[in-house]
Amino acid sequence: MKKVYIIKIGGNVIDDADALEKFLNDFSKIDEYKILVHGGGKPASELAKKLGVSQSMVNGRRITDAETLKIVTMVYAGLINKQLVATLQSKKINAIGLSGADLNMISAQKRPIIDIDYGFVGDVDDTGVNTEVLSTFIETGIVPVFSAITHDGKGQLLNTNADTMASALAVALSKKYKIQLNYCFEKKGVLKNILDENSVIKTMTKTEYLQLLKDGIISEGMIPKLDNAFSAIQKGVSAVFIAHSSDLLKTIQNEHAGTKLIN
Amino acid sequence: MKKVYIIKIGGNVIDDADALEKFLNDFSKIDEYKILVHGGGKPASELAKKLGVSQSMVNGRRITDAETLKIVTMVYAGLINKQLVATLQSKKINAIGLSGADLNMISAQKRPIIDIDYGFVGDVDDTGVNTEVLSTFIETGIVPVFSAITHDGKGQLLNTNADTMASALAVALSKKYKIQLNYCFEKKGVLKNILDENSVIKTMTKTEYLQLLKDGIISEGMIPKLDNAFSAIQKGVSAVFIAHSSDLLKTIQNEHAGTKLIN
Repeated sequence: MKKVYIIKIGGNVIDDADALEKFLNDFSKIDEYKILVHGGGKPASELAKKLGVSQSMVNGRRITDAETLKIVTMVYAGLINKQLVATLQSKKINAIGLSGADLNMISAQKRPIIDIDYGFVGDVDDTGVNTEVLSTFIETGIVPVFSAITHDGKGQLLNTNADTMASALAVALSKKYKIQLNYCFEKKGVLKNILDENSVIKTMTKTEYLQLLKDGIISEGMIPKLDNAFSAIQKGVSAVFIAHSSDLLKTIQNEHAGTKLIN
Repeated sequence: MKKVYIIKIGGNVIDDADALEKFLNDFSKIDEYKILVHGGGKPASELAKKLGVSQSMVNGRRITDAETLKIVTMVYAGLINKQLVATLQSKKINAIGLSGADLNMISAQKRPIIDIDYGFVGDVDDTGVNTEVLSTFIETGIVPVFSAITHDGKGQLLNTNADTMASALAVALSKKYKIQLNYCFEKKGVLKNILDENSVIKTMTKTEYLQLLKDGIISEGMIPKLDNAFSAIQKGVSAVFIAHSSDLLKTIQNEHAGTKLIN
């Protein structure tokens, strides 16, 4: 099995020009197949504020009304996606920007209303990833850059959490490739003590995660990321790293960095 | 030579839900190879207004400062592009949204400052269209949907007039395919009298165009469109139609509609 790196970059790194430049240089150096998935929550929130569209988050997820969907589509699929692609192209990486709608790459369903109406939020279909076209792309040297926008196949765009999208891509491609999934962000890993940047938990099993959750050690914003990560491991992804964006190459070269999630 | 339709849809049609729905239904019915190019000037201007970013136009072209570049990238490459792609996917058209940066599809140069500083406006390089990848796409049934954003290969996104982009695509592909270029908009064609919707000029040669220009018959907004169109014909495009968006299929079925530009 050939190896594919699926690398998700967080919004705070995208917002930091120096950190982003280093990250994209490192990303460009990865010789194996690779896919980039990006968020962009912070610039989306800033645009919403300027436009007077109030935002609310529940469990780290953005409630997406019609106006917010427009904003995230503009910011994620437009501004950030195309800037990333243009920068990667300048580094001779043959990047293509994609949403889930393009070539029907990732289809999703509008989340049903149970307790909370999330609005135009999409949960990726179990067979929603177009692995055939995606494989053709990566095997011809193309580097897909995904914004976290999906569609339902009936003409409706949907907002999908970028961590979830990275996880869904990882799981779908794990049937054909050996997958390493990296969540790159502005912290050194999952912290035992949120006030101490050096309290990184080096490895974590699902059992340990559940215990840390119970003890209230895991901060709210980290929960969806970890849920996604463990779900990916359970479904066939070989390794998941949660690490600082500047440590990307370490995790590729098998040096230890950040938090490694294991089965 | 196989035929390729390159169809540019104007911002006023995109803004009119009913007109857009009819247009996309008609577009979906074209059996031959096809490419869609879209503008989006009106929604971009509206967003600029909401954000308090003042806009100025010279000869029908938008002066693109850094803030305006962000706005057009968001509106063209994000919102409009992904909505068009999702709608076409729902009609079983295998659309992919592209900017010039994606797969280095269209490279451009920042327009040099002579009399006017257009800002981040890009003029497409003479050999700037990646016809090889574009051909592979259309020959495998993919329908490219281009937003009028290009890049310079050095990491800079650029705003390119959508008419010009359609024309550049048409010229580049005319070496390999028989090209019909359609400019679809909200008027019935090029009008002799701008106040009379029925004064459509049915055919126009370059000589006739120059005379009409001299006589002040051609309105300012139409000039870049016609310049592009005649330049495309001169460089190998077989036919150019400027017609109402609802008349698309007529021009495909060789019925007369709108203004046909000839050599």
